[in-house]
Amino acid sequence: MYDFIIIGGGTSGLSAAMYAARLGLKTLALAEMPGGLITTTNLVENWPGIKSISGPDLAMSVYEHAKASGAEIRNEYVKKLEKAGEIFKVNTAKNVYEGKSLLIATGSKHKNLGVPGEKELENKGVSYCALCDGAFFKGKIVCVVGGGDTAAKEALFLSEHASKVYLILRRDILRAEPINAERVKRNEKIDVLYKSEVEEILGTGKVEKIRFKKTEGKFSGKEIPMDGIFLAVGQTPQTDISKDLGVELNDRGEIKIGRKSDTNVPGVFAAGDCTDTGFKQAITGAGEAVIASYYAYHYVNTKAAF
Amino acid sequence: MYDFIIIGGGTSGLSAAMYAARLGLKTLALAEMPGGLITTTNLVENWPGIKSISGPDLAMSVYEHAKASGAEIRNEYVKKLEKAGEIFKVNTAKNVYEGKSLLIATGSKHKNLGVPGEKELENKGVSYCALCDGAFFKGKIVCVVGGGDTAAKEALFLSEHASKVYLILRRDILRAEPINAERVKRNEKIDVLYKSEVEEILGTGKVEKIRFKKTEGKFSGKEIPMDGIFLAVGQTPQTDISKDLGVELNDRGEIKIGRKSDTNVPGVFAAGDCTDTGFKQAITGAGEAVIASYYAYHYVNTKAAF
Repeated sequence: MYDFIIIGGGTSGLSAAMYAARLGLKTLALAEMPGGLITTTNLVENWPGIKSISGPDLAMSVYEHAKASGAEIRNEYVKKLEKAGEIFKVNTAKNVYEGKSLLIATGSKHKNLGVPGEKELENKGVSYCALCDGAFFKGKIVCVVGGGDTAAKEALFLSEHASKVYLILRRDILRAEPINAERVKRNEKIDVLYKSEVEEILGTGKVEKIRFKKTEGKFSGKEIPMDGIFLAVGQTPQTDISKDLGVELNDRGEIKIGRKSDTNVPGVFAAGDCTDTGFKQAITGAGEAVIASYYAYHYVNTKAAF
Repeated sequence: MYDFIIIGGGTSGLSAAMYAARLGLKTLALAEMPGGLITTTNLVENWPGIKSISGPDLAMSVYEHAKASGAEIRNEYVKKLEKAGEIFKVNTAKNVYEGKSLLIATGSKHKNLGVPGEKELENKGVSYCALCDGAFFKGKIVCVVGGGDTAAKEALFLSEHASKVYLILRRDILRAEPINAERVKRNEKIDVLYKSEVEEILGTGKVEKIRFKKTEGKFSGKEIPMDGIFLAVGQTPQTDISKDLGVELNDRGEIKIGRKSDTNVPGVFAAGDCTDTGFKQAITGAGEAVIASYYAYHYVNTKAAF
C-alpha cells in the first residue's frame, strides 16, 4: 500500500516524487517514459537557477533527485485506474498497485498533421523529435511544420545538421519566444515559409518530397524535394486514463485543477502538461507538483496536521 | 521606461526577471535583499533537479541566470508605488522608475523570538521551517516555540523525524485547530510545555541546549539539551507597499492572486511568499513568477501573438 502513486515520470511527476518522499509519504512513480517529453528537447535555458542544460540531463537530475529522496520509480505503463472504497487501484501491464492518493502527471503527446504520407513514412523521414532524429539529416534538406516556440527551436537545432531548413507555418507570424524568433530570422540556413501548408508527404520507403497546398505562400501548390519533415504542430493532453475515475476535464481534454493542484475527485491531484493551467512550462509543472505533494500529504495523513 | 518592474530580489523575483527578459521584456528587478529569505537557509534539498545546495548558492544561481538573460537588477529599496495613467511609478530612495507592468515579489519576514543565541545560531540548529529542515533532525531532540496552529503542525511533522519534540508555549492553552491540538496531545513523542518561555539558546557553533525563563512551567529556570529549535511565532507578508496601488489583500495581509498570478489591479502581478497561496516554497514561488512574467508579457504587448 502506497501513500501516493504518481502516474507519469516527467519533470512534474518526478518533482512530486521527490517532494512527497521528503514529506515521508510512501511514494511510487510509474513512468512510461522516464524523463517525459523534455527528454526530446535539445536545450533548456529557462529552468530557474540552471542557465543551460539539455532536456535529457535536466530530466535525469530530477530523476536522481527523486530517487535520492526515497521515492520508488518503476517503468511501467498504467492501463487502468480504479477506486475501491478509499483506495485507488493502479493497474499496469504487470501489476496492480494500491494507493491512498494519486497524482496524474501524464503530460501531453505530439499532435499529428493528418496528411497523406504522414503515418506511412513515420520514422522514414517523418519525425516528432528534432533532437532524437536531427543528426540523421546531416547535409540534407529538412522542414519543420509549426508556428510556435517549439517549431522555432527545432528549426534552430536542425540548422546545426541540415544544409537547409524550411519552417512551414500557416499564419503570417511566428509565435515563438522573441529571442528564438530573432535567432530563426538571423539564421541563414532557415527559410521561413509563412502562409504555407503541407498537403502531402511523398516518397517510396522514405520521405522524398512534400507538396504544398494552394495558399498565398511561396511554394503554393508546388512539390519540393525534402529528406525529413519534423512536426511541431502542438500537443494533446494525455488524460484518457483519468476518465476512469471521473476526473473532470475541460473542453481541450485538460484536467481541471484548483490552486491546491486538486481535481474534483478527493485524493486525486494533477500537475504539469495534462492540466488546464493556461501557461505550461517545466518549472510551472514542478511548482504544481510540489503543491500536489503537500496536499496529498494532508489528505493521506488524517493524523497529520498540515 | 521599463516593460516590467519587479519589486523584490528573492528566488521568485529573480525567476520572473530571468523569464521576462527571455520573453524580450525590458525588465528591472529592484532587490532590497538580493537573494531574499532563502539566503538565510543553510541547505536547500527541495529545489527540483538540485539535490543539495546552500540557500545563498541557489539564490546566486537564479541571480546569475536573471543577469545572463538580460534583466537589469538594482539593489534599491522601494519606498512608494504610484500609478499615472497606464504607467506605474516606482520610487526608491535614489530614483523614480517607470514601468508598464509590475510584479510584487516582496516576500515575508519571520517574526523573531528576540532571545540571546537566536541570531548567532540561526541555521545552526535554529530554524524557521520544520518542513524545510525537519529531515536533518532524524533521531534528535528538538523543540518548537509557538502556541498556534503552525507550531502544532510543525511539532507533529517533526515527530516523524526527531526522537523527542518539545512544544514550548507561553500560555496554558494550545491555540491550534482542535484536531491538531488533539493530535499533539496523543503523540507520545511530543511533550507540551505550557507556561514556558525560552530565555536563551546555548551552544558553540550549533544549538546544544536551551535555558527556560523562570515561570510556572515544567522546566522553569532550567537548561535542557536540545539539537534543534524551530521558531513558529509567525510570519509577516511584506505587502505594505502594495497598498499604494489598492492591491487587494486577505485578512493575513497577503496579496490575493489568481491562476495568472494576477491581482485585482490590471498590470500588477504578485508571486511568492507575499501572496495568498496556501503552501509556499521557493519552487512554487518560482512557478508563480514565471506565470506572472508570461501574463505581463501578454499585458504589455497588446500586439503579441501569444
